[in-house]
Amino acid sequence: MKVKVVTKILEANDRLALENRKLFDKARVFVINLMSGPGAGKTSLLEKTLSSKTGLNIGVIEGDIAGSDDAERIERLGFPVVQINTGGACHLDANMINEVLDDLPLEGLDIVFIENVGNLVCPAEFKVGENIKVMILSIAEGHDKPLKYPLMFQESSALILNKMDLVPYTDVNIAKIRKDSLSLNPELKIFEVSCRTGQGIPEWLHWLKERAQKT
Amino acid sequence: MKVKVVTKILEANDRLALENRKLFDKARVFVINLMSGPGAGKTSLLEKTLSSKTGLNIGVIEGDIAGSDDAERIERLGFPVVQINTGGACHLDANMINEVLDDLPLEGLDIVFIENVGNLVCPAEFKVGENIKVMILSIAEGHDKPLKYPLMFQESSALILNKMDLVPYTDVNIAKIRKDSLSLNPELKIFEVSCRTGQGIPEWLHWLKERAQKT
Repeated sequence: MKVKVVTKILEANDRLALENRKLFDKARVFVINLMSGPGAGKTSLLEKTLSSKTGLNIGVIEGDIAGSDDAERIERLGFPVVQINTGGACHLDANMINEVLDDLPLEGLDIVFIENVGNLVCPAEFKVGENIKVMILSIAEGHDKPLKYPLMFQESSALILNKMDLVPYTDVNIAKIRKDSLSLNPELKIFEVSCRTGQGIPEWLHWLKERAQKT
Repeated sequence: MKVKVVTKILEANDRLALENRKLFDKARVFVINLMSGPGAGKTSLLEKTLSSKTGLNIGVIEGDIAGSDDAERIERLGFPVVQINTGGACHLDANMINEVLDDLPLEGLDIVFIENVGNLVCPAEFKVGENIKVMILSIAEGHDKPLKYPLMFQESSALILNKMDLVPYTDVNIAKIRKDSLSLNPELKIFEVSCRTGQGIPEWLHWLKERAQKT
């Protein structure tokens, strides 16, 4: 009974995600579903991306259970942003995204980032109409995460290993993260990044521009 | 429609949680639902707790989407442990716990820790039959977490701020975490801990023993 209901919800979500995707395609905007556990650095990566001179017009949809801190951080940089408060729901779904699309100037944008709720599990199960999924893992979370939370690693096109500046102060094994992530998803592009020091940001921006231009 | 179904599932879960609780009470065992985001240090806290000479008989139920790494870490210390693989589900529920209770020697135990799936959202919504909830926040996750993920802070009796040894290498504001957590839950007991260095472990063990003995 429980499983049946979830299946129905997922089917409805997939249909709505397809509708969102058509609207994005029509506006020729490249859409990234940005996912991670809590506090891995999603908003920090967006801040670094937006404040670099990329020449790209970028819009952001912020998803949080409560609060608008993240949207305010984006707004301060002068980019269009909409905050969704899920009111308890642990992930964004296609319907939530559909309801805020009118609030973004899609026609003038090259890229839209959808920053999902901080959760390494559920967001990976719900399409929102994105072209690709990108995930962040904070190296402070440890090297056992790929095998414990496999779906997000399997679904993502890129993995940002953030907080690399903390590596010397931890026991984390970066080689193991790389090996296990690639065993789950051989196509995964991996970036070693520190949003605090700027390490790896140029490589990420280069890849981002290439992917967006292909669309 | 969607909301109705979720309510029914929660009611069924609450009934089963009550049944679990009766079994725990009958065995005079104190049960802690241990929750956090991914990689905050739940298993590390258990390792530190079990390897201290507490004189307590402790059993552990490990919850993970996939894998048995955590259960193996507990088993190595010589304590009874059961691993649950949720196969995708982002939290433990009362039914899962009920199904493994026969695999633990409840009558001989003082405390059972139920280590939930790493997720700062959903586990707080599902009772499993515990006496109290305890949560861990890795300070590397940042000081904005209490206001963004309020439910877990509201539901927990204690908050373990783990990885305190990393504070000098981050911009985290511990005073803000304390203030916001206490604004959500004035009764919350907060421990500043490093499972790596052992900081704060004696204070946590002292509190744990007191709470368990009250039962």
